[in-house]
Amino acid sequence: MTEQIRTGRRPGRPGTRETILSVARARFASTGFDKTSVRAVAAEAGVDSALVHHYFGTKRELFVACIALPTDPAVVLRPVLAANTEDLGEALITAVLAVWESEAGDAVVAAFRAMIAGGDTSLLGTFLMHIVLKDIAERVDHPAGSGQLRVNLVASQMSGVLLTRHILKLEPLASTPAEKIVASVAPTLQRYLTGELP
Amino acid sequence: MTEQIRTGRRPGRPGTRETILSVARARFASTGFDKTSVRAVAAEAGVDSALVHHYFGTKRELFVACIALPTDPAVVLRPVLAANTEDLGEALITAVLAVWESEAGDAVVAAFRAMIAGGDTSLLGTFLMHIVLKDIAERVDHPAGSGQLRVNLVASQMSGVLLTRHILKLEPLASTPAEKIVASVAPTLQRYLTGELP
Repeated sequence: MTEQIRTGRRPGRPGTRETILSVARARFASTGFDKTSVRAVAAEAGVDSALVHHYFGTKRELFVACIALPTDPAVVLRPVLAANTEDLGEALITAVLAVWESEAGDAVVAAFRAMIAGGDTSLLGTFLMHIVLKDIAERVDHPAGSGQLRVNLVASQMSGVLLTRHILKLEPLASTPAEKIVASVAPTLQRYLTGELP
Repeated sequence: MTEQIRTGRRPGRPGTRETILSVARARFASTGFDKTSVRAVAAEAGVDSALVHHYFGTKRELFVACIALPTDPAVVLRPVLAANTEDLGEALITAVLAVWESEAGDAVVAAFRAMIAGGDTSLLGTFLMHIVLKDIAERVDHPAGSGQLRVNLVASQMSGVLLTRHILKLEPLASTPAEKIVASVAPTLQRYLTGELP
């Protein structure tokens, strides 16, 4: 993205949407998700906060718009959030593998590689922890305080499958049917989520 | 690496070593480890195969020289190869975490990122499967034919730890002591290596 020209406070002007995205992307990358406020993004973009909410919804939705994913994580994660806690591991890897194997998969892989390659690793971290795994972390926070590490470990296994299967294309992993990957990896995820950890 | 000037068949001439490395790196990347022969590398570099062996040793050692790691994988893996099969998972993550946390760790992470970012993902795949995990794959090939998928799965978990802990620096994973990571991840690796898989 090249820098956009500020378009002033008049809402709806062409380029305003892109200006907001550009400002938000830079702030999420430099100061992190928690410390980025919609108000500060709006101020820097020269618009009202209400316009940012009007265009993008919540801060979380603004972030998702910033990383320009080809699929909506909220839709992908719906069956995961509906799963029983003891089935979370299987539901999660099933849902995510389905995206990686879909038509949108190449775009997801490209975004993942670009985030690792560039200076934007904080965006990928934010995506994993605030978009994909936040609600799950709250659900598996037993004993209290363990939820974050549990989902960090889940992220380690899932990102590793994306890397080795879809980027490095290690064989036979890359050509193993998704059901077999699910059956192999789900117990790992489930142990990280609800098992006893050291 | 810029392209080196060919230095002819006279051994020991300045630049010969770099020429061989440059040719080998390009061949490993384009045609893969198995189909790259020392003889073909030598011919393209304009030297005798014996000189390549003299400088670099085996094809495997030539490959390691190509990716310019700051540590010698053979030394790192010695305690892993000495471990009992039922302790392989723990020995592997222990040995590898020690490298990532050593002074050489930053260089390893940089090499890993560069390989993901560039077109050289085949070099990273070769490194994992032919250098780090080859001997282990042969050892855990029960039932026969399962060894490759077993170590692919191991690679997925280990590369994911490198990614989430050392590149994305997800918290609290990034600041969790190595012993706790080992205790959390070793059972996963051990199941992939010797457990029952679907």
